Amino acid sequence: MQVSHSSSGEQKFEVRRLEISDKSKGFVELLRQLTVCDSISDKDFENRFREISSLGDDHVICVVEDESSGKIIATGSVFIEKKFLRNCGKVGHIEDVVVDSNARGMQLGKKVIGFLADHARSIGCYKVILDCSLENRAFYEKCGFKQKEIQMNKKHPPTRPACSNNFCRCRDNKVCVERMSRNLVG
Amino acid sequence: MQVSHSSSGEQKFEVRRLEISDKSKGFVELLRQLTVCDSISDKDFENRFREISSLGDDHVICVVEDESSGKIIATGSVFIEKKFLRNCGKVGHIEDVVVDSNARGMQLGKKVIGFLADHARSIGCYKVILDCSLENRAFYEKCGFKQKEIQMNKKHPPTRPACSNNFCRCRDNKVCVERMSRNLVG
Repeated sequence: MQVSHSSSGEQKFEVRRLEISDKSKGFVELLRQLTVCDSISDKDFENRFREISSLGDDHVICVVEDESSGKIIATGSVFIEKKFLRNCGKVGHIEDVVVDSNARGMQLGKKVIGFLADHARSIGCYKVILDCSLENRAFYEKCGFKQKEIQMNKKHPPTRPACSNNFCRCRDNKVCVERMSRNLVG
Repeated sequence: MQVSHSSSGEQKFEVRRLEISDKSKGFVELLRQLTVCDSISDKDFENRFREISSLGDDHVICVVEDESSGKIIATGSVFIEKKFLRNCGKVGHIEDVVVDSNARGMQLGKKVIGFLADHARSIGCYKVILDCSLENRAFYEKCGFKQKEIQMNKKHPPTRPACSNNFCRCRDNKVCVERMSRNLVG
């Protein structure tokens, strides 16, 4: 789907917070352009949505909706880390920024980053940080960011059989009790 | 203060969660070895401690106490980000790792990182990430991490007069109402 400008050539794309109904507007499919994101059941989506929402201003996911198509075409998130250092300072961590491949060149990424950075500043963060690939550095520099450090990661191999229940906490290679009980009841 | 081994040469340093009484054991002074961390009042420390503690397993600060001196000699934190992608996955963000300059060479940093990474894995994170300087890369590689991306940051200049109340939300260059009312009452 190509995102088109309106006849005036000035289609407005507003950034707003994620709503639970955005699942049916292609939000998950958009995330899939960023990394692995299998189908999520409505129940799991709702659970995760409520977990994040319960943090209020401390974890905000924003989206841009193409009103002509009703599809979500850009998103990003920021969560607020509360520290002791920097005089009990707060830092905004920006994550999972993606613009639909058909909606590039309309400054939507910049709008999303601006929304998230403004949000972090409005609640008192002394800085916002994010990790990105070297090839995206120039984009973030245009958004006012500077390269600072390097990012390291350590992946955790799954220690149990794949479990269809994303919210279970079963461990030690046991089969998820909750999933089993689900199967038993249908 | 030089941290010394016991007569057996095998002093045990256990990693445990931060307790509110650790403020009087040099926790803030230790953070100051990492970056700016002015004095924090007992009230502000308690407020921030309770904010972080309210997140339970989703934001854990650990410490190592030198039992012979009663001082905190190492610390680090991890907070858990809940995502939609990676099938509603979770990521542990490690922050603010520091070992007292007099307690280096005793593998305390490795212990702290191990504690935080194990915690993240135990509650289902598919990975842990952290940002560090190039010169610390070799240390984190020994802890099982690999360099992945680059970190960018954007600092927010203060938009209001410095306010002694770390927990106020006053904006728009107004003088903090809460601080004013404090002044009025003493």
